[in-house]
Amino acid sequence: MNVASQAVLTTEPITSEGVVAAGVYVDGRRVANIAIEEAASWRSQPGHVVWIGLHEPDMALLSSVQQQFQLHDLAIEDADHAHQRPKIEQYGDALFIVARTAQLDGDSIAFGETHLFVGEGYLVSVRHGASTSYTPVRERCESCPRALARGEDYILYAILDFIVDNYSPVLEIIQDEVEAMEAQVLASAMTRAQIERLYLLRRDLLRLRNAVGPLVEVCRRLEHDNLPMVRPTMQPLFRDVTDHVRTVQEQIDSLREVLAFAFEASLLVGQVQETAVSKKLASWLAIIAVPTAIAGIYGMNFKNMPELQWEYGYFAVMGVILTACVGLFWRFRRVGWL
Amino acid sequence: MNVASQAVLTTEPITSEGVVAAGVYVDGRRVANIAIEEAASWRSQPGHVVWIGLHEPDMALLSSVQQQFQLHDLAIEDADHAHQRPKIEQYGDALFIVARTAQLDGDSIAFGETHLFVGEGYLVSVRHGASTSYTPVRERCESCPRALARGEDYILYAILDFIVDNYSPVLEIIQDEVEAMEAQVLASAMTRAQIERLYLLRRDLLRLRNAVGPLVEVCRRLEHDNLPMVRPTMQPLFRDVTDHVRTVQEQIDSLREVLAFAFEASLLVGQVQETAVSKKLASWLAIIAVPTAIAGIYGMNFKNMPELQWEYGYFAVMGVILTACVGLFWRFRRVGWL
Amino acid sequence: MNVASQAVLTTEPITSEGVVAAGVYVDGRRVANIAIEEAASWRSQPGHVVWIGLHEPDMALLSSVQQQFQLHDLAIEDADHAHQRPKIEQYGDALFIVARTAQLDGDSIAFGETHLFVGEGYLVSVRHGASTSYTPVRERCESCPRALARGEDYILYAILDFIVDNYSPVLEIIQDEVEAMEAQVLASAMTRAQIERLYLLRRDLLRLRNAVGPLVEVCRRLEHDNLPMVRPTMQPLFRDVTDHVRTVQEQIDSLREVLAFAFEASLLVGQVQETAVSKKLASWLAIIAVPTAIAGIYGMNFKNMPELQWEYGYFAVMGVILTACVGLFWRFRRVGWL
Amino acid sequence: MNVASQAVLTTEPITSEGVVAAGVYVDGRRVANIAIEEAASWRSQPGHVVWIGLHEPDMALLSSVQQQFQLHDLAIEDADHAHQRPKIEQYGDALFIVARTAQLDGDSIAFGETHLFVGEGYLVSVRHGASTSYTPVRERCESCPRALARGEDYILYAILDFIVDNYSPVLEIIQDEVEAMEAQVLASAMTRAQIERLYLLRRDLLRLRNAVGPLVEVCRRLEHDNLPMVRPTMQPLFRDVTDHVRTVQEQIDSLREVLAFAFEASLLVGQVQETAVSKKLASWLAIIAVPTAIAGIYGMNFKNMPELQWEYGYFAVMGVILTACVGLFWRFRRVGWL
Amino acid sequence: MNVASQAVLTTEPITSEGVVAAGVYVDGRRVANIAIEEAASWRSQPGHVVWIGLHEPDMALLSSVQQQFQLHDLAIEDADHAHQRPKIEQYGDALFIVARTAQLDGDSIAFGETHLFVGEGYLVSVRHGASTSYTPVRERCESCPRALARGEDYILYAILDFIVDNYSPVLEIIQDEVEAMEAQVLASAMTRAQIERLYLLRRDLLRLRNAVGPLVEVCRRLEHDNLPMVRPTMQPLFRDVTDHVRTVQEQIDSLREVLAFAFEASLLVGQVQETAVSKKLASWLAIIAVPTAIAGIYGMNFKNMPELQWEYGYFAVMGVILTACVGLFWRFRRVGWL
Repeated sequence: MNVASQAVLTTEPITSEGVVAAGVYVDGRRVANIAIEEAASWRSQPGHVVWIGLHEPDMALLSSVQQQFQLHDLAIEDADHAHQRPKIEQYGDALFIVARTAQLDGDSIAFGETHLFVGEGYLVSVRHGASTSYTPVRERCESCPRALARGEDYILYAILDFIVDNYSPVLEIIQDEVEAMEAQVLASAMTRAQIERLYLLRRDLLRLRNAVGPLVEVCRRLEHDNLPMVRPTMQPLFRDVTDHVRTVQEQIDSLREVLAFAFEASLLVGQVQETAVSKKLASWLAIIAVPTAIAGIYGMNFKNMPELQWEYGYFAVMGVILTACVGLFWRFRRVGWL
Repeated sequence: MNVASQAVLTTEPITSEGVVAAGVYVDGRRVANIAIEEAASWRSQPGHVVWIGLHEPDMALLSSVQQQFQLHDLAIEDADHAHQRPKIEQYGDALFIVARTAQLDGDSIAFGETHLFVGEGYLVSVRHGASTSYTPVRERCESCPRALARGEDYILYAILDFIVDNYSPVLEIIQDEVEAMEAQVLASAMTRAQIERLYLLRRDLLRLRNAVGPLVEVCRRLEHDNLPMVRPTMQPLFRDVTDHVRTVQEQIDSLREVLAFAFEASLLVGQVQETAVSKKLASWLAIIAVPTAIAGIYGMNFKNMPELQWEYGYFAVMGVILTACVGLFWRFRRVGWL
Repeated sequence: MNVASQAVLTTEPITSEGVVAAGVYVDGRRVANIAIEEAASWRSQPGHVVWIGLHEPDMALLSSVQQQFQLHDLAIEDADHAHQRPKIEQYGDALFIVARTAQLDGDSIAFGETHLFVGEGYLVSVRHGASTSYTPVRERCESCPRALARGEDYILYAILDFIVDNYSPVLEIIQDEVEAMEAQVLASAMTRAQIERLYLLRRDLLRLRNAVGPLVEVCRRLEHDNLPMVRPTMQPLFRDVTDHVRTVQEQIDSLREVLAFAFEASLLVGQVQETAVSKKLASWLAIIAVPTAIAGIYGMNFKNMPELQWEYGYFAVMGVILTACVGLFWRFRRVGWL
Repeated sequence: MNVASQAVLTTEPITSEGVVAAGVYVDGRRVANIAIEEAASWRSQPGHVVWIGLHEPDMALLSSVQQQFQLHDLAIEDADHAHQRPKIEQYGDALFIVARTAQLDGDSIAFGETHLFVGEGYLVSVRHGASTSYTPVRERCESCPRALARGEDYILYAILDFIVDNYSPVLEIIQDEVEAMEAQVLASAMTRAQIERLYLLRRDLLRLRNAVGPLVEVCRRLEHDNLPMVRPTMQPLFRDVTDHVRTVQEQIDSLREVLAFAFEASLLVGQVQETAVSKKLASWLAIIAVPTAIAGIYGMNFKNMPELQWEYGYFAVMGVILTACVGLFWRFRRVGWL
Repeated sequence: MNVASQAVLTTEPITSEGVVAAGVYVDGRRVANIAIEEAASWRSQPGHVVWIGLHEPDMALLSSVQQQFQLHDLAIEDADHAHQRPKIEQYGDALFIVARTAQLDGDSIAFGETHLFVGEGYLVSVRHGASTSYTPVRERCESCPRALARGEDYILYAILDFIVDNYSPVLEIIQDEVEAMEAQVLASAMTRAQIERLYLLRRDLLRLRNAVGPLVEVCRRLEHDNLPMVRPTMQPLFRDVTDHVRTVQEQIDSLREVLAFAFEASLLVGQVQETAVSKKLASWLAIIAVPTAIAGIYGMNFKNMPELQWEYGYFAVMGVILTACVGLFWRFRRVGWL
């Protein structure tokens, strides 16, 4: 990396706001950091690749990028405001790609968006929202000049691969939560807080699926469509990304199904518990009804009630009550109501 | 716009009922307001585009439009009565497009329908029901003559784009309601009014999906089918609309799924609450049963009941009752039944 | 129509049982009512179209029809017994079409079946079950000879259009019922009679969908398949029918979904009501338990119970009981349990 | 049939176990009953068709059949053990077809399997499990030599048609049960026995669908794929079978959906009943609580309770109790709780 | 096998860790056990096939394999870590196949993964996790040299067939459990343990489906895609595997549906039981309320209560109480509440 670093030092620093990085690469090595305005002239030199990274650029900056690479109005318009579906579009000899990113931000999931412009000799990435910086991608690419030397389609691959890789920790966190929830659901009926957690997990998975689902098509087209910016030798790499996205998608779908099972199971567990409560209630009511009824009878004020006069009537009745209660208790316990 | 305005003043005003606007455009500027009967002759002049806007026209007006542009009987029949599915049909060298519109009308959603006839040198829009006037589209187009100069396919794009744009505020309102509902569902079991709201939201989304769903196919065909009325340079614009419709559709589908989750969650929350009520009921019954049973026993009239004679029997029994009740209370509280 | 009527009078009347009508048309006008046995000879004359309408014919009649037009054994076999799926089949140069019909028969829906044989110069319709007579179609066609002059494919179009038109009043009745049901479902938990109605509506919709669904494919093939019996100029007409069937299908699907929503909503409403009953029960039990418990205590027979001797003990206790009950009542009311 | 019978008598009887029938047909008439070992030589004579029917043959018998007709190892292996999915496979110039059969066996449904080998001049059927003998097919074919004369593809058609025809009585039985169940479900909440019946019906339908579903594809391929063993003139016959299978499939799907509706309806009916029980319980508890509470109060032992001394206090209180109880009763009845 | 065994003895034994077997086959007989480093030279000899089996190899071993056969970086990377979706990929003239395996490990299901590299003259299998050793496959192949002589595509078939065969016992175990569960579900409401079992069965089936589902596509491509490594004569074998996988998949889907039915049935059974408990509770409360209310009335202390003075008042009241209770009991029993 030394050569590249040297090269960097000889060029002017990046100053514009919204520009994260703007470099020119020859044979996989950064030979200059450039201003946006110089991009077109650098790019037109044979073997030179311009790689520009923007973060929530204003329209002025986007316009200047557009001028440099003759980008289509509609793509620039799209890149200006987020909330696009993942897609791939070809405008003349330029590709415009939208991907949704997902990262862990502490405990919750932060969704972002990345727009990519790729053409002969350049790649421009535009990040919106909570998407991670692509500095690690840049560093990894620069540390492996031979791969990077393949050009802008390799950079495209590296960024898409990075985006898809970043889904995994998010999925793992969700998976852990789902597994924790599973144990709880089956152990006892859910509390309101658990239901809320279950609900939010389903929403997160829905958003994640919406982010990942259309990306399959994007990658598939990069792999199959013989786009002019993607050399045939790069297609196995994109197939690898497609594959990775599909794996992520399958995991998401499985988790969604598992949560649906969990919902159904928890409905059953809740029903079991409700019935258990009803049984307990009925059992205790029955047990308590015995002394109440018997005592009520001997609390009547009839003049002629022979039992009341018996020496041990009281004790006999208490014995009967106790026997009945204990008998009922054991009976209910035996049939599982208590 | 001055030139256009001047031009307008030199032509006769529109008088027919049902005609919202009828103008002729050359190079994106309105050169005349015309009567329907003149449309054919204006249209046949090279570089002239006739743009007519109708609102719930009667059959006479439609017939006269039909004559001017040689429209197909079936298309005119369709345009006469609303309740068509969104569709695109090619009759000879004319396109017939049906789209459903949705706007906010105060708090509720008003659905309407727009039918469009497009051919070489003309575009006729026919609005039914609560669809917004296309005056804003006209004004925006006229304020940008260079774009409008591209002809009738640009007008078609502008109208479709406007229709799709109008879905967004409707969706946002629904989204806000869904989010408000979510919070309520998870906070406590639903009331009947909330269930009704949930139900009506689902119906609204169903209608919206029915409006938007088939439009995807309409836009896709405009983008891909190489229709003679759509120049290749316009295809990226229609692709943009397709994209927009798809985003709207994805949002609708997500909201539908979220409401289904909310329904399921609310079933669980309702079950939790039902069980909580049962537990509370059982607990209080148990607590109250203790003094009732004990008091019943000491209310018996047996001659020989030693406890009754004890000096502090009453206080002892009251102590026992109190202890039992408090004990039960704490026990129930500990297990979460109270 | 005068000429046609005259022509009719010069020919012998129809006598065979099972034959509703059998006419020969030239240039859209009926020139003769014929016997089945003459059909082949009439049909072979250029410009002549034979239109025969049968109603639940016996095998003999079908065989004679078969002979006249050289129809395929299997198609005749199908036409002999009802309960076919809607379908379109091509046997040599003849088309065999099956459609299911639905009409209102008083309050309930009556399903029927129509089989159509179409070939060069003839159309034979065979009705089974509760399908409406096609006399109105015949009359409408005869009143418009220019259209009818187009030949047997126009008659085919007219009959299919009539069948599809007849679905609409059926759907409207169902829609009205669904809307009435909606209001009931949301107003209070369902009664058993309402559940039964909901159930029967779903069954009716299922049958209707089974009738309409495969018809889409039938119409689509008439529109697209370049069948030899359908002239290209007729295709827009069949496209119109396809469109109509699709609209009906969409309405059916929407109603099905609405009923599914109604079912879910009614489950929630039922749960809400169940919980409300439980809460009421618990509240009143609590209120009634207070006097029972207190009265029980002061009904004990302990010798030494100071309160019993107090001058106003009874009134004090009654005051306590009343206060407790009223207090509980207000508390329950405040939390919405009563 | 006389000629055929005579022919039969001149040949040796069938003796091998597992062989149900083995005949040679010329022009649709059986000319000989043969041993398996002779099959190849008979088959090679022009215009001769060998038709062999096996029932749960052992491997030795299958091997000998294989040798005669040069069947593929894998097909023979499949034919040796049951539990294959319905499928059609082409091995060289032979077809291998698997179909699942269903018959009524008293009250329950018996599923079986039939494997068919078809090639130039022969058809071998192998039955497994409870599949009906194809003797009726053989008899029907032999009684109609002209049809049978068409050859082995006609026999294939006859057997498939027979299999599909046999689904109908099974379906009818299920349909009757479903209709009986419907009435029960809507009349009152289900008993455990009815739930079990509902459950078993759904399983039966699932198995039936698994048997019928893949058969659609088998028939469709026989109809469309231009297989060398199926002459074009036979395709309408196979289209007829396809059609029949589709009708059966549609009926199965409808019944499945109806049972799903019934399940949902029964859940609602059960909820209605549960609520009705709760309401009844609550009403009676309220009615009984009145005398209990009032009597408790006048059972207190306060020295000073003026009412107790009143001459008609007892009767007054009894009147109050009665009035209250009757009043509550009427009130509950009016609101439908009792 | 003697010749093969002899051949084996003349070569050096396998020593590297992670290598399960590495043999060279000529005409279906093992002629040498080799070290990985020799593989390339053996493979290049005409008619020689190298078959290497690895188990959780480290990267060094994989790299050495890669060098021998010039495998693609991405495939090696995939093979290095498990958790791939079943897939088939073609890199130049090599196939890379991933399959998921499932075996019974005592009572629970152990999932594993197998990666296969196939090219002209070699097959490398890489096992991860709990997948069974392929030694039985090797032995079976070696015992049948004629089949094995066909080459590496036969080995591929043998391994895939073995993997698919291994699903069956797993499925059988699940099927047995499902049937046991069915009986329990229908006999009485589920316990929490049964719900957990039901839940876990559904998860297992989900995982199994995820393992089997994509394998259908893998086999289908081997059968249809005319891959250079699969000779046309082998296609029937792969079709057989496809068929087998499809059968397994159908069984999994049926079981999944059956479990969904079981869930629904158990919800209904649970509801029935809950209602039964409520009915029992209500019945006993009613029966017990009678003596309580009556006894309460005669426990009142009114001075003037004529019945109290009657000689047999007590016995009369007891008779009334008993009659009422028994009467109620029989009534409740008759309507099925008790």
